[in-house]
Parts: sequence; C-alpha cells; structure tokens
Amino acid sequence: MTDELFDELVQRVRATSDQAASDGRALQDQLTKPRGSLGVLEDLGVQLCAIAGSCPPPVPEPVTIAVFAGDHGVVAEGVTPWPQEVTAQMVANFCGEGAAINVIARHVGAEVVVVDVGVATSIPGPASGLLRRNVALGTKNLAFEAAMTSDEVAAALAVGVDVANGALARGAGLLVTGDMGIGNTTASAALIAALTGSSPEQVTGRGTGIDDETLARKIRVIESALARLGTEASPRRVLAELGGLEIAAMAGFIIAGAAARVPIVIDGVIAVAAALCAGSLAPASRSYLIAGHRSSAPGATVGLGHLELTPLLDLSLRLGEGSGAALAVPLVQAAAKILREMATFESAGVSDNEVVE
Amino acid sequence: MTDELFDELVQRVRATSDQAASDGRALQDQLTKPRGSLGVLEDLGVQLCAIAGSCPPPVPEPVTIAVFAGDHGVVAEGVTPWPQEVTAQMVANFCGEGAAINVIARHVGAEVVVVDVGVATSIPGPASGLLRRNVALGTKNLAFEAAMTSDEVAAALAVGVDVANGALARGAGLLVTGDMGIGNTTASAALIAALTGSSPEQVTGRGTGIDDETLARKIRVIESALARLGTEASPRRVLAELGGLEIAAMAGFIIAGAAARVPIVIDGVIAVAAALCAGSLAPASRSYLIAGHRSSAPGATVGLGHLELTPLLDLSLRLGEGSGAALAVPLVQAAAKILREMATFESAGVSDNEVVE
Repeated sequence: MTDELFDELVQRVRATSDQAASDGRALQDQLTKPRGSLGVLEDLGVQLCAIAGSCPPPVPEPVTIAVFAGDHGVVAEGVTPWPQEVTAQMVANFCGEGAAINVIARHVGAEVVVVDVGVATSIPGPASGLLRRNVALGTKNLAFEAAMTSDEVAAALAVGVDVANGALARGAGLLVTGDMGIGNTTASAALIAALTGSSPEQVTGRGTGIDDETLARKIRVIESALARLGTEASPRRVLAELGGLEIAAMAGFIIAGAAARVPIVIDGVIAVAAALCAGSLAPASRSYLIAGHRSSAPGATVGLGHLELTPLLDLSLRLGEGSGAALAVPLVQAAAKILREMATFESAGVSDNEVVE
Repeated sequence: MTDELFDELVQRVRATSDQAASDGRALQDQLTKPRGSLGVLEDLGVQLCAIAGSCPPPVPEPVTIAVFAGDHGVVAEGVTPWPQEVTAQMVANFCGEGAAINVIARHVGAEVVVVDVGVATSIPGPASGLLRRNVALGTKNLAFEAAMTSDEVAAALAVGVDVANGALARGAGLLVTGDMGIGNTTASAALIAALTGSSPEQVTGRGTGIDDETLARKIRVIESALARLGTEASPRRVLAELGGLEIAAMAGFIIAGAAARVPIVIDGVIAVAAALCAGSLAPASRSYLIAGHRSSAPGATVGLGHLELTPLLDLSLRLGEGSGAALAVPLVQAAAKILREMATFESAGVSDNEVVE
C-alpha cells in the first residue's frame, strides 16, 4: 500500500451521522422503559446509529477479532520477566485455539484472525491459519534508537488495513482489536505519553507483573525515548520512534474499519495506544471506537480519557489478546437489539409517565 | 409449602466447597496467561467451582430468568410518578416479548418466566405463558401498616421456591432474578436499611425518576415504617412489615437455587433487597450469589457491600426486570469456559515466567 493510497483511506474516514444519532435518542425515549434507565447501553445504541448512519442500527455481526503479534527490541532493557520466545509460543497457542482469546471468541461467536506482523523468533508447530505478514523480526530497542523505519511503519499500517479489509469482505459488522507482544506495554506507555502529553510516571504500569526496580527502569527507558522526539513530531514519526509493529498494524486496522463505517471494539492499554495513533493519523476515527474495558494498566485510563471513551467493562483485566474487548461484544450487540426489538409505549399499550402526568 | 418444609429447604443450603475453590485457584495458575491477569473473571471462575463442588465447573446453562411482579400499597404516598397499572401493563409486555428483558434474554439464550405474585390490577391481553400465582392484589401501605401478613410472606416465599424448582427440573444451570413492581424501590430501600443497619437517607434513591420533594417523602415513609420494627425483628417479620410480595418470592427463588447448588445472578436494588432477605433466612445462600451489575440506586451499593459482592457490570442501569443480571450472563459463562477450555503452559508448550526466572 503506497502512502498515497493510505492517505486516500484516511480521507474516507468521515464524521458519524448526527441525524442518525438524534433519531436513535428519540427512539430510545419511545421504548417501554423509563427514559435513560439503560444508562451506558442507551448511549452505545445511539453511537451505533451514528456509526451506521441508520436508526435502528444493524446488529453488529459477524465479529472478527484480529490478534496482531509483534516483538519489541526494548526487552533487552529488562522491562519484563517474560522471555521474548513467549510471543511466538502464544501465536502458536492462538492458532491451536488454546488461549483465553480463543475461548472467549468461541463463546461470543467471533472469528479470530492471528497475524504475525513482527514476531522475532520462530513460531513453533503448524500454526495453522496464521497470516504471515512479518514486516520485521521485532522492533529495534526504543531506548536507544527509532523502533521502526518509516518504511516499516507504512508496511505495518498496510498489514492492519489488509486484515480489516479481508474481514469486511467476509461481511464483518464488528471489528475487535487484539494484540500479543512481550514488551508491548513499554511501547504503549511511551506512545500514550507522547500522544496525550502525559508524563511517563502517569502512564507506565507493571505490565504482566514486574517489581518496583523494573518499573523504575521501564520509566527511565520511556523518558529517554521521548527525549528524542521533541514536541513537533508527526504521527508517523512518533510511531516509528516508539513502535511497535503490531501497534501500527492495529492503527491501520482501526482506520480501515472506520472508513467502512464499522464499529471497532478496542481492548486494553496496547489497543488504546493504537487508537491514539489512529486518531492522530485520522482524527474522525475516534467516533467509531468502543472501549471494551478499562484495563488495570494506568496508561489505559489516561488514554481512554483523552479519547473520551467510557469503557463497558471494568474487571481488572490485564491480559491483552483482545480478551476484554471480546468479552464486551455481547453488550455491543445487545445495545443494537434493544433499539431494533423493544416495544414502544404505544405499541405495547404501556402508560408513559411523561404523558400521563 | 408449610413452614416446616421451608425450614428443611433452608437446612439444605450448605457452605460452598473450599476444596473445589482451591482446585480452581490452582488451575487458573496453570493456564496460558499471566497469573491473575483475568482479574474478576478468575475470581468468578473459582466461585463457580466452589458452588458446583467441582473443578473445572460446569458451564452455567441453560439459563432461566424469573421476573416476579407485584404491586405496593405504598404508591398511595406518591413515591413514584408512574401509575400502578404500569405493573400489569409491563407484565403483558413481558408476555408479549417486547420488554428490554425479553430482548436481552433472547440475545443471551435464556428463557424468561413471568410470575404474577402480587399484581394489583387486571393484566391486559392474553398474557400467554404467565404463571398466575397471585398471593394478594398488592401489598398494604407500609407507611402505616404491615405490608404483608405472615401467611402472605410464607405463600410468596413458596412461589419463588416453586418457580426455582420448576426451572431446576427443566435442567437450569443458572438462575437470574428479575422484578417488576411500581413502588418497589421504596420497599427495597426500606428492607436494605433494616437489614444492613443503614439510614434511609443512605439507601434511598430516585427510583425510575422522581424530584427532590418526592425523594424527601419517600425517605419519611421509610423512616415511619422502620420505626415500627424495632431492632430485634425476625427476618420474616421484616419482610412482612416492609414487603413486597415479589421480593419475598425472589428470596425464596434464591434460597431454592442455593439449596440445589446452582449459582444465582442477581440484578439491581430490588434483587439486592431480596438477596439480603434470603441471607437473613439462610445465611449460606450468600455464597451462591453473583452480582450482575451495580445499579445506580444508592441502596444497591450499600447492600452489595453488606453481601460482600463485586458487581460484574457498572453501566448506570436502573431498569430492573433482571436486565443488568441478564446482560452479565455471558461473563459468567465465559468464566467457566476459561477454566474448562484454556490450554495450560505445559500442554501448549508456553514458557511460564515463574518457572523460567
């Protein structure tokens, strides 16, 4: 995908429909429930109207969960207790249907597409179904140099666009972001700091389990990377400096979904970083996002606030893979069905207190 | 159902299994995810082990949602803007499959059983499928007198037990409480105050939409009812004084589910009041409860704290009907499937950081 084609795609990400949102609000108020009593689910239904440009909205199905896997050179700094090989091992586990995301996807009736966009080590076993789109064998170490070249950024964005377009061609009505990459909470925290203007201390967490000393090291690494960027870096330059390959792919995936007016459920802190990247490249893409959950990583909350997204779940999840987003899928579909299937006060012969009084 | 038979049922509510819980914790730590990374979902899976007495636990299905409908004499005090007829109209709407709970139940693959345990006015239309177990045409006005006689309490409890036993006979693996009753947030707030030792101000909310003046009246009504009770009232006496018929039935439903070692997902503030009643009659029943969501009613949070339950959803719902609990059903089932279907570090050949280090 050339930069020109990508820019054309970005141009196709338009504002969502105010008219459909307004129609959605009006319909919510006619349904047989006290006004506003379905809380966040009502807002979500209205957002689905705005995204689709129709009221009621289509039920967002079928669902494609794309799990983008990539490695991070920053693991050389000792920011995680997990060996880098675990990225490849987990890719094999996804393909073997044994990971949490596989279980949750089957449960909610979603397909899982596993994508190697930047795994550094050999993926064991048959890895059947794996999309082999490796752009590089992991990123460079962001502590000392740019994680990606500008060509790698473009290639990784294109992988995400292709995966989204493949799902859309199969009829996907809802896209879900997933991720795997040892070291990726460091890259994500760096991106969230850079794109929200927050300090590394505010956005850096313990990933999948590190001690105080490692946390301090992780923060120092992020500080040194941010120091290279300055304040005027372009979105692509930020992505290149901080990585990662899977995060760039997720940004492309989000932008392609938004261009097709399909809602995208984002997962935890890695997805929040990708969503901020997507928003910096294509600002209108934010309106197409649904936050599946509030990850326990501090950067997730900072990023969600910046994106003005209210997470649907808050279950102290910190797994990644798309697990929290996938768990939220039934809520998203329920929000659409409420608007499509509930009776109105008039059709059901129920007294409406705002009329009766 | 005689009081003796009910007491026998209460005796059958036993503590959940510590051994199965311990096995569940051990299994969680072998699955291919960082330990604890599925947060609340891991705790929920362990609870399902403890309830079933087996690890992994069965998938909690099929699901029966019972919606208990009853009216409240306290509506004469002007505690709600909705006319009492709406209870009967909504029962007809449930039977006609047009209410929010019907839409959500279809979505999550649950059956809905609608029970008239105390509706005051005529239920319009065919109301096909309605279980007609009316104990009284609504409660008396709790502002001035006992809402129910002791015979009515016993009869309403028995309705709930019968409905649960019917569902269990059809093979139900998960029970969900639902409720409908204009005025029932007043009775629930009174029960929560009485059973948690909280003040009426702490637990009384705006129900489905009332102004400051009505809220103050609602609190005064609850204060006057509590003044009749004293501090040594038995659980049945508390239920009799404050009502309602549907709340007593829900308490019986919970106790029968717990006696059968089946988990029960409770909904919002009405269900929390019923769960507190169930807990006062059969203390071990609390361990079988799963809080579907945190209702925006203040009494719900007070009651959940007293029951030591962490709600799965927090979506500012305040509808009732079982809607929040039904929305949480996919999460409960996912928690069981995680334990049943995920690969272990050993089976998937994934490096475990706690071994590697």
